[in-house]
Parts: sequence; C-alpha cells; structure tokens
Amino acid sequence: MSYKNFPMVSKVIFGRGSFNQLGDILSPKRLNATAPFIFFVDDVFKGNAWLTSRIPLSYDDKVIYVSAEQEPKTSQIDSLVEDIIVKYKELPSGIIGIGGGTVLDIAKAVSIMLTNNGESKDYQGWDLVKNPAVYHVGIPTISGTGAEVSRTTILTGPERKLGINSDYTPFDQVVLDPELTKDVPKDQWFYTGMDCYVHCIESLNGTYLNAFSKSYGEKAYSLCKEIFLEDSLTAEESQDKLMMASWHGGMSIAYSQVGVAHALSYGLGYLLGVKHGIGNCIVFDHLEEYYPKGVALFKQMKEKHNIQLPQGICAKLSDKEFDTMIDVALSLEPLWENAIGKNWKKTITRDTLRALYQKM
Amino acid sequence: MSYKNFPMVSKVIFGRGSFNQLGDILSPKRLNATAPFIFFVDDVFKGNAWLTSRIPLSYDDKVIYVSAEQEPKTSQIDSLVEDIIVKYKELPSGIIGIGGGTVLDIAKAVSIMLTNNGESKDYQGWDLVKNPAVYHVGIPTISGTGAEVSRTTILTGPERKLGINSDYTPFDQVVLDPELTKDVPKDQWFYTGMDCYVHCIESLNGTYLNAFSKSYGEKAYSLCKEIFLEDSLTAEESQDKLMMASWHGGMSIAYSQVGVAHALSYGLGYLLGVKHGIGNCIVFDHLEEYYPKGVALFKQMKEKHNIQLPQGICAKLSDKEFDTMIDVALSLEPLWENAIGKNWKKTITRDTLRALYQKM
Repeated sequence: MSYKNFPMVSKVIFGRGSFNQLGDILSPKRLNATAPFIFFVDDVFKGNAWLTSRIPLSYDDKVIYVSAEQEPKTSQIDSLVEDIIVKYKELPSGIIGIGGGTVLDIAKAVSIMLTNNGESKDYQGWDLVKNPAVYHVGIPTISGTGAEVSRTTILTGPERKLGINSDYTPFDQVVLDPELTKDVPKDQWFYTGMDCYVHCIESLNGTYLNAFSKSYGEKAYSLCKEIFLEDSLTAEESQDKLMMASWHGGMSIAYSQVGVAHALSYGLGYLLGVKHGIGNCIVFDHLEEYYPKGVALFKQMKEKHNIQLPQGICAKLSDKEFDTMIDVALSLEPLWENAIGKNWKKTITRDTLRALYQKM
Repeated sequence: MSYKNFPMVSKVIFGRGSFNQLGDILSPKRLNATAPFIFFVDDVFKGNAWLTSRIPLSYDDKVIYVSAEQEPKTSQIDSLVEDIIVKYKELPSGIIGIGGGTVLDIAKAVSIMLTNNGESKDYQGWDLVKNPAVYHVGIPTISGTGAEVSRTTILTGPERKLGINSDYTPFDQVVLDPELTKDVPKDQWFYTGMDCYVHCIESLNGTYLNAFSKSYGEKAYSLCKEIFLEDSLTAEESQDKLMMASWHGGMSIAYSQVGVAHALSYGLGYLLGVKHGIGNCIVFDHLEEYYPKGVALFKQMKEKHNIQLPQGICAKLSDKEFDTMIDVALSLEPLWENAIGKNWKKTITRDTLRALYQKM
C-alpha cells in the first residue's frame, strides 16, 4: 500500500482584520519593480472600497476583476495567462486570489500556467505539472469550498471537468480573515457552506477514510452542525467557525476523497453549468440511500434556513444529455471507489445514475 | 492588532507503514553523492532491526544514535553540527529525526545551525535565524509533544531553556506512521500524551484563543479524552488517534500559547533536568486553581492508567534553587499573559510560584 505525500499550504495567517497585513506579507516577495503582483478579485467587490482600498498596490501591480458567475474554464485560464505574458516584461512577483472557490482556483491555475508551457487542459489530471508555480496567495471571501487548502484547481475543459492536481498547486500563503465573508448573501452562504458539509459526509463515510482524514472531517462536521443547526453563535463566531470548517473539511478530503454527491454534481456542472455549491445541494438532497444520516441532517438545515432548491432541472433533457452527464460522473472512478468500495461497478450502473438525475 | 503568519510543515504523509516510503521521499532530495543524509535516531532503537533495517542508507549517509534521556542542550547541538562539518566535504542533503520531541528538536536545531553561523544559544528566541535550514524531516516515534508541527525547537542553553522560534524551524517533511509508536513503554506513553492534553487545556483556557486554535484544540482534546478515559479503542486505533491528537494539539498552540503548566515545568526542567512530559504532569497535578476541569480529568486519567507521579521532588531545595526556578518560570511572559491576562503580574508573584513548587 502506498500513501499520498500531501503538500500543505506554506504559511497561514488567521484573524479578523488580518487582511490589513497583506502589504507586509507581500513586500518581501516582490522580485523587482517590473515584476508586478496581480490580484484576481471577485467582481462582486468592484466599487466596494471597504475591501478594494486595502489591496496594497504599487509599481505595476494590477487588479483584475473576474466573475464567479461561471466556474473557471481552461480557455479562460489560457487567455488570462497570455494577457499577463504579453503585457509585462517579466513574470509576476505573485498572483493573489481574493474571492470564493472560483477565484481561488483561477489564481492557482494562472500561477501554474505562467511557468508551464502549453495549454491548461494538458495539465488536467494528476501530477502533470513540471515546474513550480509563481508565488501565489489565496484569500477566501466565502467559506466552504476548501480551495484554500487543496492541491487541486478544478477547471472545465473542452473534454472534461477535472482539476490540475499537483504538489505545486497549493497556495504559498493563505490569509484567513473571516470578516471578509460578512456580506455574503444568505443563499450563497448556505450553498457554499454545504460544500464543506458534503465534503465531511463523503470523507467520513468513505472507504478511503483513515485517522488523519477522520480527525479533520469530524471537526469540520461538528462545526457545520453548530453553524447550521444551532442558534448559539453570534454572526462573527459563525463566520469564524465556518472559515475553519472549510479549512478542516478541505484537509479531510486531502487525505481521503469525495464521493457520490461530487461525482453527480460534476455531471450537472459540465452539462448545465450548474455551479458547484448549489449543484452539490441539488444532488445531495436525493442521496438518502447512500448517506442516510447526512441527508436527513441536510434536510433539517435546508428547512431551518428556508432554502428553496431548484426542482426539475433535468426534466427536459434528452437521452444524449443524460448520457453526457452519466459519462462525466462515471469517469470519476476514485470518487466511486471511495464511496462504494472496490466493487462499485456492480451497483453503480448507468441506470442507477439516470434514475438519480431524473429526480433532480 | 497584528496576527502571526504561521509557517506550516511543507509535506505530510500519514499511514501505518508509511515509514517504508522514506526512501522514495528522500531520493529526489539528494543533492549529490557526497552530500549525505544524516539520520538522528533515538538510541532506544539501537539494535531494533524492525526499524533500523528500513532506514534507507546509501553513499555516505549516516545514522547517529542520540539519547533522549536528557533534553537537548545548545552545547550538544553545536557539537553535533561541528562533527558534521568536519567530517563531510559539503552540507548534508538532509537531516532526518526519528524519535520523540528531543530527537525531533535536535534534528530541527542541527538543520538550522548547519547554515547559520555562530552558536545555537545565539538563536534562542524569536526570529533570529537568518538563513534557510538544510532540508529536514521529522518522524515521530512517540506522540504528544507536537514537535512535528511546531516552529520551535526547545533547547537548554547556558542561560535559559528557550526555543529557536523561526519560519525556518518547521520540518520540510513529516512522516506520521503510528505503527512506530507501538513499543512505547506505558509510562512514557502517558507522560508524552499528557503533553498534548496539557497543550489543549492551556490553549483552550487561554486569553490568546481564537477560532483557529480553538478548532484544533477542541479536536485534540476530544481525541485525548477518547484515548485516555474510554475503553472503546483497539491498540492500533489508539496509536493512530494519539498521533493525530499530537498534531492538532501542536497546531492549536501554534496560534495561541501554552500556559501555567509549561511555565512551571520549564523551571523544573532547567534546574532539576526533569523531562518535559513528566514535568508537565508533576506540575499540572497541582493546578486545580487555574484549570479546575482540566486537572480533575487529568487525575481521572492518572488513576485509570495507574500512574504514580514522583512526589517531593522540591522538598530539599534551597532558597536559591527555588529562586532559579521562579526566575525561569516568570521570564516566560507570553505564557503568563495567555494564561492569566495582561495584568498577570498582580496575581502571579514569586510567593505564588514558590508555594506551588513546594507542593511538588
């Protein structure tokens, strides 16, 4: 048996207001006056001086606003990288992502593709990256995805939705400032928080589980229950704890794997562009058979926060479209093996998945 | 308010038998045939082929057995570093520590002092290290100290017992193989495990606590309770969980601080050479006033495992000796500030500490 050797985030700072220390963190990393820092910032912050006035800019540093309406595409990454290479004489001193999973994944992928030739689609998979990435910093402004600790960056390519998984993917620096999440809309807060909750359920109920993943997963799970089912926390405590839940949930899947919900959600994302957080919720709502206790608690959380999930999103799909989603879902073999076991192909058939998708 | 920017271990591998992957982990890190890997190994493993036959040696690699009977001294580090410099033409490819907190701290300190001039006592303190250390790997064979994740290496110098705290201190690689702890004697298992338990109590009850430390501390605390108070675990599960408890407990104090028990224990260690794990137990047993619930549970654990702590170790000390211990303990100001608050000097007097030491 061979165990994964997991690369961790190099440095982490935690605290309300720690975002103010970004200038001090970056300045020793500046290579020279013509090697800029590039800040990818979720465009929901455009015009929000509370945040943007605190982005430390000097020399040729640049803020690039990106939309998180759609999840990152390989073509988008290639285009962002080309723009940077054309515009600047040398490689950036660093790439900083300020946003949710989409923006963090863009920052990770761009930092990798600046130092690796070719197109980003060629690096979707495991350990295909040859050269270390440009210094990159992740600053989450919504909690749940675990993108801040993971060794992947999930991209939708021409052929598949799959991460660039590599030892060079994790951030060199993460800034965990829960205050940055204070204005997240309630539905987004719920969907993204549920990404973390689903990570825990899939990790804790998976066959890949070990004591490392379990200890992180249990902590994230208990934080999620406290946040989403109890009324004992102040708004600030809840923000702080959800940021830590996301971190621990990400560490838990680092050493295990996700499962049924993520496999099916990837299919929805690929075909219909359903975003990951809400996609997980739509799928998870129908997975009683696989995660009975986890789904029961999820339904309580949904009710408590008065969340209405979209219904019937697969109602009008053609056979060919179902087949596309099923192909994407079935291709994620490690997820099924983790969820069901080595003999997963005996129970997880195309008909099983078609029946599940038809409920959504 | 300024937050710490905490450097994490770069890579971690977890699993029973993961020690077998050490050769694969080290081989890409070999600089050349004349730059050896130096393995510092706890001398309890001398002649234990189960472990030593699996240490991957080639070229000029060398195993150096070290005793953990005494905790590391600055003079010992300086002498080990000089031996390596005299013996080899170039710097080692890496330093690997295989043992408990003492051996791990030796590995960290040697790796730092190989690339930094002068004596190790000059680096006791915070952020005094100028140059990156030699690549260094930590492989714990007993669980509890948290030395595998910390940014310090505790050394007893001519003037004080104090760590080399720096961003270059943490290991580049940690191998968490719980199987390596299977032959730890019961008393050592208890004392070192209690180091972790005390970390949790001090962190969770400290004024420095935040959501980051709290989430790690709570997980380590609940693992300790499961391990030391319940009877539900197999021997292997207990080894696995204690290794994770040590890891999370170390992460918890990384972002907070230890407290009363550690301050007093450092005094015992400095004057009497009492080792850290048992020293913490001797001290903690008398701290009902500061940590009532934590001490009550500790006494239950002690009883359950039939642990007899030494009594009267301070009975015959002179006034001057008491003063020495009190000086050491009081000098650790951040520990007191964490434990008691900014006004700690109002309640923590020399008389307070003398009265506590006299009970031990």
